[in-house]
Amino acid sequence: MRVFGIDCGTEITGYGVVESDDTGREPRLICKAMGAIRLAKSKTLPERLAQVYRELIAEMERWQPEAVAVEEVFYSVNAKSALKLGQVRGVALLAAACQGLPVAEYAPLRIKSSVVGYGLAKKEQVQFMVARLLELAEVPQPADAADALAVAICHIHTAQTLLQQGAIR
Amino acid sequence: MRVFGIDCGTEITGYGVVESDDTGREPRLICKAMGAIRLAKSKTLPERLAQVYRELIAEMERWQPEAVAVEEVFYSVNAKSALKLGQVRGVALLAAACQGLPVAEYAPLRIKSSVVGYGLAKKEQVQFMVARLLELAEVPQPADAADALAVAICHIHTAQTLLQQGAIR
Repeated sequence: MRVFGIDCGTEITGYGVVESDDTGREPRLICKAMGAIRLAKSKTLPERLAQVYRELIAEMERWQPEAVAVEEVFYSVNAKSALKLGQVRGVALLAAACQGLPVAEYAPLRIKSSVVGYGLAKKEQVQFMVARLLELAEVPQPADAADALAVAICHIHTAQTLLQQGAIR
Repeated sequence: MRVFGIDCGTEITGYGVVESDDTGREPRLICKAMGAIRLAKSKTLPERLAQVYRELIAEMERWQPEAVAVEEVFYSVNAKSALKLGQVRGVALLAAACQGLPVAEYAPLRIKSSVVGYGLAKKEQVQFMVARLLELAEVPQPADAADALAVAICHIHTAQTLLQQGAIR
């Protein structure tokens, strides 16, 4: 199973591709790719949105994931920030739809629980555990890429749990 | 000059194509097309965003406008609504960018001033004046299409004013 995680942001949108390898004695998680799309401030908003869209489509075509995972938005932000974030998020969800990929959304608490085992874990703990689960020598940079890998891991863990329960095959 | 106006909404996104005809003794405004994209509630969010994107791209390709005009978002809405609206708006702005069209944004007050001559005009007054300026027998339906025509008219009026002032050629 290969999952494309996206962490949408107004300035930086992170992505990460995680694959589960169930061929060995113990299931492993492999980081196939990660990166961050930094939006040029000199560009207009429509141009910035086109940049996010094109880069996400290019990475999805390159890595051929089976699903996309994104974080549910936490509404403590104000309306102005929510609108800006929504514009980027809409384009990211569109990219998934145009590639024919199903999209799964996970609440921040759920992602932390899935990666660290504790829903109120700090951001740094999540990033440390992402590196450990994916057997990376260092914590993924920037943090947006690490967050994207975290939501992809959450999706794989959720799918594995459902499989074990016989809920999906 | 042909302008494609868009009125983004979470459930219905209106659009309208307005052309200025400066060949006669008096400049005229012509409504070339108008419509509304109603989002199926049975679909997932990514599917709905893909529907908006595809329909807008199809209409832009059909009508070959020179510019796109949208309303600036009024921040009195709450963060949850702003995020939802932002997702649709991001996709609409992306459609314009992918077609290589410049996007102009106008504040609600500016649009009302431009169409009715009074910034605090009521919604019904704006819709009535849209019908009158475009020489339509009836007020455009749904209201979302009328609002899209209004922002397109605002863009044409603004461009004509700038032309008269010699600011652009």
